Amino acid sequence: MDFTISDKMQTVIEMMDEFVDKELIPLEAEFLSDSAENFQEKIEEKQQKVKQMELWAPSHPKELGGMGLDLTEYALVSEALGRSPLGHYVFGCQAPDAGNVEILHEYGTQEQKEKYLKPLVEGRIRSCFAMTEVDQPGSNPILLDTTAEKKGDKYVINGRKWYTTAADGSDFTIVMAVTNPEASQYLQASMIIVPTGTPGYSLVRNIPVMGHKGEGYFSHGEVLFQNCEVPRENLLGPEGQGFVLAQDRLGPGRIHHCMRWIGVCKRALDLMCDYARKRYINPPDKNLASKQMVQQWIAESSAEIQAARLMVLHAAWRMEQEGSKAARKDISQIKFMVANAMQNVVDRALQVHGGLGMTDDTVLAFFYRHERAARIYDGADEVHKISAAKQILKEYEGKKVK
Amino acid sequence: MDFTISDKMQTVIEMMDEFVDKELIPLEAEFLSDSAENFQEKIEEKQQKVKQMELWAPSHPKELGGMGLDLTEYALVSEALGRSPLGHYVFGCQAPDAGNVEILHEYGTQEQKEKYLKPLVEGRIRSCFAMTEVDQPGSNPILLDTTAEKKGDKYVINGRKWYTTAADGSDFTIVMAVTNPEASQYLQASMIIVPTGTPGYSLVRNIPVMGHKGEGYFSHGEVLFQNCEVPRENLLGPEGQGFVLAQDRLGPGRIHHCMRWIGVCKRALDLMCDYARKRYINPPDKNLASKQMVQQWIAESSAEIQAARLMVLHAAWRMEQEGSKAARKDISQIKFMVANAMQNVVDRALQVHGGLGMTDDTVLAFFYRHERAARIYDGADEVHKISAAKQILKEYEGKKVK
Amino acid sequence: MDFTISDKMQTVIEMMDEFVDKELIPLEAEFLSDSAENFQEKIEEKQQKVKQMELWAPSHPKELGGMGLDLTEYALVSEALGRSPLGHYVFGCQAPDAGNVEILHEYGTQEQKEKYLKPLVEGRIRSCFAMTEVDQPGSNPILLDTTAEKKGDKYVINGRKWYTTAADGSDFTIVMAVTNPEASQYLQASMIIVPTGTPGYSLVRNIPVMGHKGEGYFSHGEVLFQNCEVPRENLLGPEGQGFVLAQDRLGPGRIHHCMRWIGVCKRALDLMCDYARKRYINPPDKNLASKQMVQQWIAESSAEIQAARLMVLHAAWRMEQEGSKAARKDISQIKFMVANAMQNVVDRALQVHGGLGMTDDTVLAFFYRHERAARIYDGADEVHKISAAKQILKEYEGKKVK
Amino acid sequence: MDFTISDKMQTVIEMMDEFVDKELIPLEAEFLSDSAENFQEKIEEKQQKVKQMELWAPSHPKELGGMGLDLTEYALVSEALGRSPLGHYVFGCQAPDAGNVEILHEYGTQEQKEKYLKPLVEGRIRSCFAMTEVDQPGSNPILLDTTAEKKGDKYVINGRKWYTTAADGSDFTIVMAVTNPEASQYLQASMIIVPTGTPGYSLVRNIPVMGHKGEGYFSHGEVLFQNCEVPRENLLGPEGQGFVLAQDRLGPGRIHHCMRWIGVCKRALDLMCDYARKRYINPPDKNLASKQMVQQWIAESSAEIQAARLMVLHAAWRMEQEGSKAARKDISQIKFMVANAMQNVVDRALQVHGGLGMTDDTVLAFFYRHERAARIYDGADEVHKISAAKQILKEYEGKKVK
Repeated sequence: MDFTISDKMQTVIEMMDEFVDKELIPLEAEFLSDSAENFQEKIEEKQQKVKQMELWAPSHPKELGGMGLDLTEYALVSEALGRSPLGHYVFGCQAPDAGNVEILHEYGTQEQKEKYLKPLVEGRIRSCFAMTEVDQPGSNPILLDTTAEKKGDKYVINGRKWYTTAADGSDFTIVMAVTNPEASQYLQASMIIVPTGTPGYSLVRNIPVMGHKGEGYFSHGEVLFQNCEVPRENLLGPEGQGFVLAQDRLGPGRIHHCMRWIGVCKRALDLMCDYARKRYINPPDKNLASKQMVQQWIAESSAEIQAARLMVLHAAWRMEQEGSKAARKDISQIKFMVANAMQNVVDRALQVHGGLGMTDDTVLAFFYRHERAARIYDGADEVHKISAAKQILKEYEGKKVK
Repeated sequence: MDFTISDKMQTVIEMMDEFVDKELIPLEAEFLSDSAENFQEKIEEKQQKVKQMELWAPSHPKELGGMGLDLTEYALVSEALGRSPLGHYVFGCQAPDAGNVEILHEYGTQEQKEKYLKPLVEGRIRSCFAMTEVDQPGSNPILLDTTAEKKGDKYVINGRKWYTTAADGSDFTIVMAVTNPEASQYLQASMIIVPTGTPGYSLVRNIPVMGHKGEGYFSHGEVLFQNCEVPRENLLGPEGQGFVLAQDRLGPGRIHHCMRWIGVCKRALDLMCDYARKRYINPPDKNLASKQMVQQWIAESSAEIQAARLMVLHAAWRMEQEGSKAARKDISQIKFMVANAMQNVVDRALQVHGGLGMTDDTVLAFFYRHERAARIYDGADEVHKISAAKQILKEYEGKKVK
Repeated sequence: MDFTISDKMQTVIEMMDEFVDKELIPLEAEFLSDSAENFQEKIEEKQQKVKQMELWAPSHPKELGGMGLDLTEYALVSEALGRSPLGHYVFGCQAPDAGNVEILHEYGTQEQKEKYLKPLVEGRIRSCFAMTEVDQPGSNPILLDTTAEKKGDKYVINGRKWYTTAADGSDFTIVMAVTNPEASQYLQASMIIVPTGTPGYSLVRNIPVMGHKGEGYFSHGEVLFQNCEVPRENLLGPEGQGFVLAQDRLGPGRIHHCMRWIGVCKRALDLMCDYARKRYINPPDKNLASKQMVQQWIAESSAEIQAARLMVLHAAWRMEQEGSKAARKDISQIKFMVANAMQNVVDRALQVHGGLGMTDDTVLAFFYRHERAARIYDGADEVHKISAAKQILKEYEGKKVK
Repeated sequence: MDFTISDKMQTVIEMMDEFVDKELIPLEAEFLSDSAENFQEKIEEKQQKVKQMELWAPSHPKELGGMGLDLTEYALVSEALGRSPLGHYVFGCQAPDAGNVEILHEYGTQEQKEKYLKPLVEGRIRSCFAMTEVDQPGSNPILLDTTAEKKGDKYVINGRKWYTTAADGSDFTIVMAVTNPEASQYLQASMIIVPTGTPGYSLVRNIPVMGHKGEGYFSHGEVLFQNCEVPRENLLGPEGQGFVLAQDRLGPGRIHHCMRWIGVCKRALDLMCDYARKRYINPPDKNLASKQMVQQWIAESSAEIQAARLMVLHAAWRMEQEGSKAARKDISQIKFMVANAMQNVVDRALQVHGGLGMTDDTVLAFFYRHERAARIYDGADEVHKISAAKQILKEYEGKKVK
């Protein structure tokens, strides 16, 4: 057992940490203010710097212009970048583009790679992923209402999706739709690429989430497919294999998210400790950091972060060693453990800040409201608990326990 | 011991419940959308109806045009109105106006009553209360930087306050400022009425809270006093008695808030149960309500609400029987118990709604982000825990425990 | 709404509090030591005193020699007596005798009353209640393996029960057995009185619970019925009505237990506050009571006790007003809320005592290990949560929620 | 980063797991029963087998007859053996002997090693460690009342200690006593070896802990030193260095305990899953394992165990890499995290077992009551939280946080 981080990764992380501190955190105030106009420009400016530093697209293959990091390496990167809400965008590894890159890279045809993958990795276009159904449980990929009927050399798509993150401004979406309704449950759906200019496709609205409609990257769309026709060569991967691909996509995606949340936790702990040291209370020679209740939160937060972090790194390592399937229990366990640790840590940090914590003068209120979604997307806590329990219980079949 | 609610109050509550259901909840979608313009008009329209029904200003004295309810009666009203974020505004009992009315009624001069109290109760003008200091712990009234220097027949006020709720559009503020710096700790500050048009007074900004600057009623101001001069007859109550008056104000205010939070809890439980019954999941004949994890939350939420509700009603009853001072421990205990029960209940209701819970398509996300402040204002949880503990420990002085 | 306790009950409670403090708590050290021999004698001595004070059997009808208190009155008594593990025994209202008295009083024949009820209330004999099956879930009265076959003028009973509290030394047991296997689910079982000297009845063992086999009152028996024959006049209540009677027995029984647990909580809080005040730590001028973490526990414990207490009193009041059935949700809710509050409070009190808390030098370790059962008997937490949730959800049928 | 366990250790663990399953768990019923007489014999019989398998004394140096495992290797052993309360005793690595061996090995004179260390490692004699003061906080080694006055070539020891684990039957104790009262705070105390036959030394009582006085290994003594004289060559290590040695002893000791607790957790999870699968409830085709509430506990327990386990292994690794001092925060964090995870997991396992969980028919009730001490000894949770927080806060000195 060896917990050492390689020299290479230590260097990468230090560079990223510094960039986040010096270039991104100062941008946050503007990001958090209502006037997000022209903000896209500033992000692009920072993206240029990142490209020059050769830290662009850390999770993407080298041949596509990324850094080609493996899963455990990228986990450390996701942690570093997660400290700011802007990190992943500026380093070219934001969801859902990062996941789309992975699928296109592994399953795309030569033409699809040329047309969609290349400009996506270069950051010239943006994309989204239309999976979650409005009227169906988000966590259950086998309850799909959206259909893609084969008609001649086309697919005719009908359905309504939401939580299509970053649909606003995307050049294409990958939609999950039923192409083979007669097939067995898990083999009915396919992934299909739909350029957003296609007739019959429309962005109905940016869903107001926690009081914000958002725009561009920072939005969640409700999208409508009404007799939307695309050529059959837009099929991504084999027909009927949509869920297989989605699983492939979700496995590493959960590692990415979990480590991003660890980054959120670390930032929150930093702000909590720093403010606790600076804030003097009555009697005026005592700061918050001298108070046991605050000390308790700091210790508990630090310990929970450490626990969560080691679990994610171990799950990533196991995925690499034994594959996604062997690590299913681990992935479910990190999903709910890390999401809850994050909620606890952010909540405590906000509380230490008092009234200030409720304002957008720090990033904590943003984390508080938007990262609440962590316990819901990619499978709610409850779904993962049941899934993990079933796998654990299976281990006891035929086992003699005393 | 008798838990019966009087016939009179049962009738009042039924009328209010129905009004909230039929008139206010349908308005919420618009309230929650970004375009709050012209919304003030709609509130005023509803206020007219409430006045016609003679349910206006339930907590205010009859002679001022209110319903003249006592503390336990008003507690039940606050619960009923708390079910919608609009309730208290439309019924003329919103903070901070309601508290200002109380103080003006008890301590105002005849002239002050004529000029400020009367139009305030009638809903013709609005007011705010400038107590919390930007650079000092909000929970500690004895750390005041704001001063009101006596100069001739004037007070010259200097200082910076924030969390001055509803400052935007207010006609006057009541400011807490040090008038007697040489007096003993608790007798240094006074309350002074400052019309918002007074030179030297300015609203610096509406503080962005949880992503919203808000406006009008629904805003929290940062206000600046720069050599702001007001006549000495604007003193409210005796000089140096600011904290005595503030304590008077906070005691019943905490009952009001706590019962409003119970209203929030009840609404959240309603939405949770209703959605759990309607949402069908895989296998499609099972709804969320059939799942043990959801059942567990429903039962725990219902029990926590019941516990919290009885505690508040008991504290109100005790305050009326024995006075605020005797009930100090009780008030501290309800403050943190109810705020935490509310956070739990709202969190579970949101989780049951999944992705929908994160959106503003229900009121839950609004409750989730804005009512987080409940654990902070009017004394943070931690302040009340320590305060309660000290009072409890005092009871053991000289007591022989075995 | 009126939370006043009657003068009569205030006097009763004061007398009992004093008796517990002066007569019972000093006996606990001996009770907690392993050498419980001859302890029964001391209890009987105290029982004589209680009888002389006319505080004997507070929950039993006056005509039987009890105090004839109603449910809410007795609730207050159970709280007072619960402060010591000896309270209920010395005042003649311990489980399961108290429940047996209730049933015999309501359903017993004249002969049964003469033979069993009278000496039981007088404390001359002891009894037990054989319901829980070894191989079936304890919380589910409809899964009964024990049978009572009618044969001539006899019942022939076969089965194995456990958690037959106080079977050791009992003069008779009331057994729940299937008499009408062909009847509908809830009408199969009956209650039958079995004198412990009956051939075929045997006490297999006192179950070692938390390391103690115990004896007499303080034991839980595993009992065996092997072709155990009793005359048909030993039937208690109508045949097939066993569960109806059991429900009658459990409703008030839960109020009794819950209030006893509140007594446990109060004692634990007393010990926690007292020790926190007395224990000085480094630096030696600071006691534990000056530490925020301890203060936090004191405040939280006090608040949880207050919440739990009001819930139980309200449930008792509602049961009296509207009957057991209307109060079912309330009873389920107090069952899990109070049991958990007790576990929290006792755990904190033990922790404040440090190493001392683990020893039997205080009563806390006894509470810690034995009252853990509160979350299990008379329906586990989980059973009550589901039951409460189902009743709550039923309220939403046909209700329009917005 | 590499989480692989070496082939050597995998083999060792498998052998130990099998031994625990086949040889020790079947002995537990007898151990848990009251009649522990002659039990020592059975333990010694198993110890012989362990010696023959060359698995004796895994944490002790090879040259003394142990296995010579390093800290992370022994951590894995402690986990395996922790699954049964008998594991550490039978494998010759129980507290406090194991700690005494470490100190004697590192600091003992040649004569001390010959006289005490050798027979101790061989399991021919037993020892104890007298540190905790009756009237002082156990967690604070600088508040010592016990003194060892130098008089000629002797130390004259006076004081009262408790929680002297296994004092009953020990051949010697190592006592912590003030030898240099004039020295600076941390340099006042020394460790001194006291053979238990020395006049003036006496075992006052085995403290009744959670209802059990225990005996032999399984006891905690209160011991008295009354003018107890031992020769000055009984000094262990340099005079005045008692606390330095104690710290050395506690660091690895906490790793040992924490991993033992992980073993407890794993056993509890095993029992919980196994019973949940076997226990059928109404309707009778459903077992407890099919219930979401139970599934939730299984998943949460498994995740908490995984988190706790990785934290301990990481802390052990760090201690080996960077030394005890660098790992202080980590050690504090595992101390409270693992102790609480254990309490949660054991509590859930007990609850799943219902009434059975309260009995000594499984090992769970033993774990429940005795392992409660984990949150107290070697520094209470609260002490470690404050200690960790202070170290964390120190990292922010001079750090610029945004």
